[in-house]
Amino acid sequence: MTELRSNTRMPNRIGVFLGGPGGGLGVKGDVVMKRDIDAVLQTLEANGDDALARLFEFLAIPSISTDPAYDADCRRAAQWVCDQLSDIGLQAKVHATDGKPMVVGHAKKTQGTASPLHLLFYGHYDVQPVDPLDLWQAPPFEPRLAEDPTNGEVIVARGASDDKGQLMTFLEAARAWSETHGELPVSISFLFEGEEECGSPSLAPFLAAHKDELKADIAMVCDTGQWDATSPAITTRLRGLAFSEIVVTGPSRDLHSGMYGGPVANPIRVLSSILGGLHDGEGRIQIPGFYDDIVEPDKEQMAQWRSLGFDGEKFLAEIGLSRAMGETDRSVLEQLWSRPTVEINGISGGYSGPGTKTVIPAQASAKVSFRLVPGQDPQRILDGFRSFVDSRLPEDCRVDYLGQGGTPAVGFDINARPFRAAAEALEEEWGKPPVMMGSGASIPIVESFQGELGMESLMLGFALDDDRIHSPNEKYNLASFKKGARSWARILGKFAAL
Amino acid sequence: MTELRSNTRMPNRIGVFLGGPGGGLGVKGDVVMKRDIDAVLQTLEANGDDALARLFEFLAIPSISTDPAYDADCRRAAQWVCDQLSDIGLQAKVHATDGKPMVVGHAKKTQGTASPLHLLFYGHYDVQPVDPLDLWQAPPFEPRLAEDPTNGEVIVARGASDDKGQLMTFLEAARAWSETHGELPVSISFLFEGEEECGSPSLAPFLAAHKDELKADIAMVCDTGQWDATSPAITTRLRGLAFSEIVVTGPSRDLHSGMYGGPVANPIRVLSSILGGLHDGEGRIQIPGFYDDIVEPDKEQMAQWRSLGFDGEKFLAEIGLSRAMGETDRSVLEQLWSRPTVEINGISGGYSGPGTKTVIPAQASAKVSFRLVPGQDPQRILDGFRSFVDSRLPEDCRVDYLGQGGTPAVGFDINARPFRAAAEALEEEWGKPPVMMGSGASIPIVESFQGELGMESLMLGFALDDDRIHSPNEKYNLASFKKGARSWARILGKFAAL
Repeated sequence: MTELRSNTRMPNRIGVFLGGPGGGLGVKGDVVMKRDIDAVLQTLEANGDDALARLFEFLAIPSISTDPAYDADCRRAAQWVCDQLSDIGLQAKVHATDGKPMVVGHAKKTQGTASPLHLLFYGHYDVQPVDPLDLWQAPPFEPRLAEDPTNGEVIVARGASDDKGQLMTFLEAARAWSETHGELPVSISFLFEGEEECGSPSLAPFLAAHKDELKADIAMVCDTGQWDATSPAITTRLRGLAFSEIVVTGPSRDLHSGMYGGPVANPIRVLSSILGGLHDGEGRIQIPGFYDDIVEPDKEQMAQWRSLGFDGEKFLAEIGLSRAMGETDRSVLEQLWSRPTVEINGISGGYSGPGTKTVIPAQASAKVSFRLVPGQDPQRILDGFRSFVDSRLPEDCRVDYLGQGGTPAVGFDINARPFRAAAEALEEEWGKPPVMMGSGASIPIVESFQGELGMESLMLGFALDDDRIHSPNEKYNLASFKKGARSWARILGKFAAL
Repeated sequence: MTELRSNTRMPNRIGVFLGGPGGGLGVKGDVVMKRDIDAVLQTLEANGDDALARLFEFLAIPSISTDPAYDADCRRAAQWVCDQLSDIGLQAKVHATDGKPMVVGHAKKTQGTASPLHLLFYGHYDVQPVDPLDLWQAPPFEPRLAEDPTNGEVIVARGASDDKGQLMTFLEAARAWSETHGELPVSISFLFEGEEECGSPSLAPFLAAHKDELKADIAMVCDTGQWDATSPAITTRLRGLAFSEIVVTGPSRDLHSGMYGGPVANPIRVLSSILGGLHDGEGRIQIPGFYDDIVEPDKEQMAQWRSLGFDGEKFLAEIGLSRAMGETDRSVLEQLWSRPTVEINGISGGYSGPGTKTVIPAQASAKVSFRLVPGQDPQRILDGFRSFVDSRLPEDCRVDYLGQGGTPAVGFDINARPFRAAAEALEEEWGKPPVMMGSGASIPIVESFQGELGMESLMLGFALDDDRIHSPNEKYNLASFKKGARSWARILGKFAAL
């Protein structure tokens, strides 16, 4: 952890957290908290069976948010987590929305080693659908323990990992603190939503309407993974996203390719030609100015990533590929964590049914999205894309840009005090410092917290790559559940000393 | 006509018809036939109302071949044309097939000025569906005469032009010859199919099984158009066709574009890049050897096309375009009639529903077709395409070629005697020589006659561009019907003298 603290700095152009690096823990606080934390860990050990029973109760509720048939189950799950908060001694409430309910709870630390820190913990109580059901070895909402050759005992059920199991690591840590010391060690608010798996339509308006109630010093999001089964991780970078659909129109109607083929602009040809020119032979994106504003990770961060021994060839081989298609002067990990992309997510035009149809269609369209890195502005990227397309369009064709949107990338300063405190706690639990990971993907809630509440997020979770989230036989290692709760218990203790 | 005969020669690398140019009509034959033909034309004039009544009877049968609900109507239409042949004095029979029935009839000329010529007349009794029905101004199978501002009296019904009206021009000419002189002037066989509008699946096997019965010196296909309302035409060139579907496979499964985007080969990107490279900036196709074997039209043919005053800008403006996309050194008419193309008829991959889905799909596919011109071999073109694609494919992606097929282009020698005779007859009826047209499209029956029976085709019809074939309110000019029958009566007379 020392190395990480002293050598790595993440660029953070988006928000500044808590004034950057500060001093270590005070001696007195450190001693107090060590004893307090040990007691909490003992409580967790003693109550392990009850904790698992509570998780099983939660997992048995089929709170599938995308399917209206499970509306009542979603409401039941919301009430269940609300009851958990009350049970721990918090003031908690289920809020109706236009979609699934939100659960909000507040605990105020009132005595002991007072910390000014106010945390917001976020999780989601909804789960993915279970199709294809016939691939499940047991009913998805009848949680069970199973023996797994590589992972030991695992909890199997829909939501075991994403996100009920992860969410409960935190709630059990909070419960243990409350049971052991009569209160939580810092001020914590809780926000649970039930629409994470269907695009969180109610979230932004809810955050906007409850800004004062939910604004905290930092959010904790337990919906990410470890580096591997024995290495904890904090996710400190997320790529942003910009997207646009383009529709190219050529002739005014569909035409017979024999009667018209040759002189007539085929919009599929026009579209292919434009999209086919987005990259050069070295994988570089050809939109003018595309790379201009990028803030590169610093040398120390790059050095840490290199030290991870990430095997790019193995990564590609697992999905049947052998050759990286990104910029040829960047490693696979860099291409994923620190380089922007343009991807064509969908393309369509003309006839795609069985057999042949000799048609020149009037239109062809593509859905294009960009993954962005810190420094890049989504609107500027979309404007550049538009110029690129417009300049390559035959003068008598038309292009329409539909459904544009985007969010910037996220990059947090891992030397800020809460990150350092969390890293210390993880090292104490796991015996090694956490990996400060990037992620190629976007996590909308983190962007919403940043955008709506100006709040950074500590993305810290215990999922593993083989958890089969969103797939049949989803599992969560029993060790993830137990050590996850212990990790949070330690982290809360560290936070109390800040 | 003199100019056409002396100055134009079409290349014909595919078949040789009847030994090329021959002498004029014999004086005796000419005189005999002139008197005979005049009598036939008088019969046509006298029986005009009956002819129209017969056509209306035919048009009233809803013989839609693509819809199984009209199976009985198709059989009824087959029987109806068979009865027409019997009525004219031919031996005719309805042949069952795996699909719609074929009608075959034979007339042998037995006296008078004997001609060794044996003709095969082809037409189809099936019609297109009528959707959208609400755009018809009157029920599509209740044929009627209507006044049209630009065309005078028109026959309105589904099939009025394609192909019932056209087919009946020939049957009425044959009937008039039979009624006037007791027999047809030359040996003629008739073939009517009922699957032209749904891909003629039964045709090739039927031709193969009845080769001896159907083989003739030349086929006459009355399913094409005039140059304009006052200018008859013979279609002497058709482009060929080659087609292939290509499926590009990248990763072994669909991937999240955030978690994998950058290093991973996106098959839509790969496909776009390959297809986008098929043409250069001057509209030339980049497949090596693509143009190598082309037999160009000769100077005289090109001169005739230039003299037609075809307005390429108007042609493009009618479909909302202004800039020809074919080879920049070729006119629009050349691009349509004498230059090969590659068109992407369909493309698909990834997500095309509403909104966004940040997916990198495992596969993307395109349906590609080539229009070929005389000299090009479909298999060689497909082989070249395959090399082109293979050479541009990243080494870890795969491409599959599905559903390949094709037929060569058709180009007939317009100086062969039957073409000259038909051209003379048309000039006598219309007061001007026919335009020797090319067509950018393919006509499968013509290719089948050539491929299965080694027989060339005289493509001669009286349809007009504004006939709305395949569309609501299909029409056939009453003048097309009458002058069409008169034209055929004259042509048969000319043929009898060959």
